[in-house]
Amino acid sequence: MTQVKNNQVVLRNYVTDFPKESDMNIVESVITLKLPQGSNDVLLKNLYLSCDPYMRALMSNMEDLEGFQTYTPGSPLTGYGVSKVLESEHQDYKKGDLVWGITKWEEFSFIPSSLIHFKIEHTDVPLSYYTGILGMPGMTAYAGFFELGSPKKGENVFVSAASGAVGQLVGQFAKLAGCYVVGSAGSKEKVDLLKNKLGFDEAFNYKEESDLNTTLKSYFPEGIDIYFENVGGKTLDAVLTNMRVHGRIPVCGMISQYNLTQPEGVTNLANLILKQVCMEGFMVTAFYHLYPKFLEFILPHIREGKVVYVEDIAEGLENGPAALVGLYSGRNFGKQVVVVAHD
Amino acid sequence: MTQVKNNQVVLRNYVTDFPKESDMNIVESVITLKLPQGSNDVLLKNLYLSCDPYMRALMSNMEDLEGFQTYTPGSPLTGYGVSKVLESEHQDYKKGDLVWGITKWEEFSFIPSSLIHFKIEHTDVPLSYYTGILGMPGMTAYAGFFELGSPKKGENVFVSAASGAVGQLVGQFAKLAGCYVVGSAGSKEKVDLLKNKLGFDEAFNYKEESDLNTTLKSYFPEGIDIYFENVGGKTLDAVLTNMRVHGRIPVCGMISQYNLTQPEGVTNLANLILKQVCMEGFMVTAFYHLYPKFLEFILPHIREGKVVYVEDIAEGLENGPAALVGLYSGRNFGKQVVVVAHD
Repeated sequence: MTQVKNNQVVLRNYVTDFPKESDMNIVESVITLKLPQGSNDVLLKNLYLSCDPYMRALMSNMEDLEGFQTYTPGSPLTGYGVSKVLESEHQDYKKGDLVWGITKWEEFSFIPSSLIHFKIEHTDVPLSYYTGILGMPGMTAYAGFFELGSPKKGENVFVSAASGAVGQLVGQFAKLAGCYVVGSAGSKEKVDLLKNKLGFDEAFNYKEESDLNTTLKSYFPEGIDIYFENVGGKTLDAVLTNMRVHGRIPVCGMISQYNLTQPEGVTNLANLILKQVCMEGFMVTAFYHLYPKFLEFILPHIREGKVVYVEDIAEGLENGPAALVGLYSGRNFGKQVVVVAHD
Repeated sequence: MTQVKNNQVVLRNYVTDFPKESDMNIVESVITLKLPQGSNDVLLKNLYLSCDPYMRALMSNMEDLEGFQTYTPGSPLTGYGVSKVLESEHQDYKKGDLVWGITKWEEFSFIPSSLIHFKIEHTDVPLSYYTGILGMPGMTAYAGFFELGSPKKGENVFVSAASGAVGQLVGQFAKLAGCYVVGSAGSKEKVDLLKNKLGFDEAFNYKEESDLNTTLKSYFPEGIDIYFENVGGKTLDAVLTNMRVHGRIPVCGMISQYNLTQPEGVTNLANLILKQVCMEGFMVTAFYHLYPKFLEFILPHIREGKVVYVEDIAEGLENGPAALVGLYSGRNFGKQVVVVAHD
């Protein structure tokens, strides 16, 4: 039986504030590339791993994560990825299949087939897209914006973390829906990207704005109909005073708060009442039944170049920890992907 | 033409923190009980005036209240009331009609007929009920709980300000819907009322709880499905960590915050995401089209004694300022009404 080297990214210990590269170790282990007898697992070769903000929560020592398993110190991280099936005992998967779903941060993984989300049928687009525009972040943008946001033509949309894996798609979806859309991001380069490549009507660098409330008033003199919430904290507070009557706030993430021991207080929630605003948290997992419909919508747009996707590619599993940690300081430029192997 | 004395409750000046009795004056004016020629108004004799938490917002010097007119120093307050039509130039109203809607804090008022919400058809129940269970607060409880809360049998409901005009009804509606319901209030007497008269399963005095999070965990070991939000601030923060997946938070009011120059910060909003909670602010005015349906639902329950309503009656317009101010310290025991005249 073939034994091969299997590098892994392993959590050293639970994290309490900003995660650092040194919170993870690269461990060289050895794996036998053969499913154990009687196994219902699938043996995967991991190609692309996805760096996603939610992973920070799994690094904490939390009891109650609503059924989510936090990471275990000494064990490899888990996360979304694109993988190739090397062996399968499950009838839905066979050797050579490409799949996306939950895998481990290592070169080869035994994974329960229930964690695989979808078989990849379309390979005329970059495979890495299945960690982004064609994977969880794409579905997140689609479900959050269209299902919860219920956009109407001419409405005013604001997106925070707008150049990120999800935000860049929300902005482009908003334009497809005939909305006016403004994005915020954390550098001049990202702002340029939003305005010049991603088609946002306006964009600003939130780090250069001393008074977000005034900034938002200038971009939205009539108020915001849809705020796609990715960051929380001060941005949310400024948005709340600028919402329009019957506005909607799909709450996708609050990345500015994940590493704080004491989150920032949000003081303007009373605006929800007078403005009759609906603020709704969601998890993409509740919307995966819409994936076939989403593919039908998005694939033609990608092929025709009407929706573009910006990726930040880190080559090599050993660069995974830095790539992941970079999310929380906004070092990534677009969707952060880690390449384990190209095929 | 008959000239009569017309006492009024007049705002002295804009209010910046907790309102005090001395922020209002009792002014004796004189009125001619005759509609001016060509008027489209209705001349009302005011019977019952309603003290409602939202009135605090209208005492502020605010620019933007989404079309709501703040009070004008030197002029009488406005608010919900039950009135008798003395004269009308509008075809929908005639002398002797009883109506409820927006009127002024004075004995007699010229009011545009558009501000009258409904003609009172059922007088076998106390007329004052049209400022409460059969008026705006009743519709608020009904719309917020049933339309936004979407209760299912067996779900867990938490209500703050539970002995107030709206809260006491939400609790009783929750029992009618087959839910488990816990209320919080600010005194032992109110807690007794909730448990012994209003049928809440449990109730507690929030002023005696040092750790609301632990308190809520003990009453809701499986979490809260519906939180009917009346208070905001610390209570909301504790609730957010105790919500159940797919929970709903109809946001009716945040009375704990209205008198603070700097509202308390809410730090646990990230729970909205993992728990997939929908938090929705609403204004009862968006639901008045349901009023006939509401009456059909509530009147039999009142007549059969299956829903009760606790009122705190202040006799005389001159006691209006104290009654209104009392809302913000929780001095009222049930729905606060001011009697101007009994008929």
